[in-house]
Amino acid sequence: MKARVTVFCKEAVFDPQGHTLAVSLRQVGFPGVKGTRVGKVIDIELSSNSVAEAKASVQQMCEKLLANPVIESFSYEIKE
Amino acid sequence: MKARVTVFCKEAVFDPQGHTLAVSLRQVGFPGVKGTRVGKVIDIELSSNSVAEAKASVQQMCEKLLANPVIESFSYEIKE
Repeated sequence: MKARVTVFCKEAVFDPQGHTLAVSLRQVGFPGVKGTRVGKVIDIELSSNSVAEAKASVQQMCEKLLANPVIESFSYEIKE
Repeated sequence: MKARVTVFCKEAVFDPQGHTLAVSLRQVGFPGVKGTRVGKVIDIELSSNSVAEAKASVQQMCEKLLANPVIESFSYEIKE
């Protein structure tokens, strides 16, 4: 079973990497870029065969290790 | 219009961050983790109103700035 976790800075938190990227994109010929936000994406391969078990496991991983709950928010999807 | 770009190391390229993360996850109580790969996710807000135009623009951004074609592969989706 596979999971894809996506972690972004919370909306209220300034994202310097995203800000810099938006400026760079406008400079290299994309004036239509209004803004960007940069995050992490993590693909996890799990030995579990149950979707419920995988979900519970991934939720715990996010809380324990993958995201910093103070400044980041996460989402995930489970694929079979 | 919004676009979400996902950039990962190519399958054939060793991903040290993903390898380290898998080891860490196993150590903190997730023995069922077979492997992980870590990539970047970039949310872009575009002023364009045409899906075709946004697609062409994002494809160019990926080739020019967002991914290193030697070691990385990218994918993207456009959301209205």
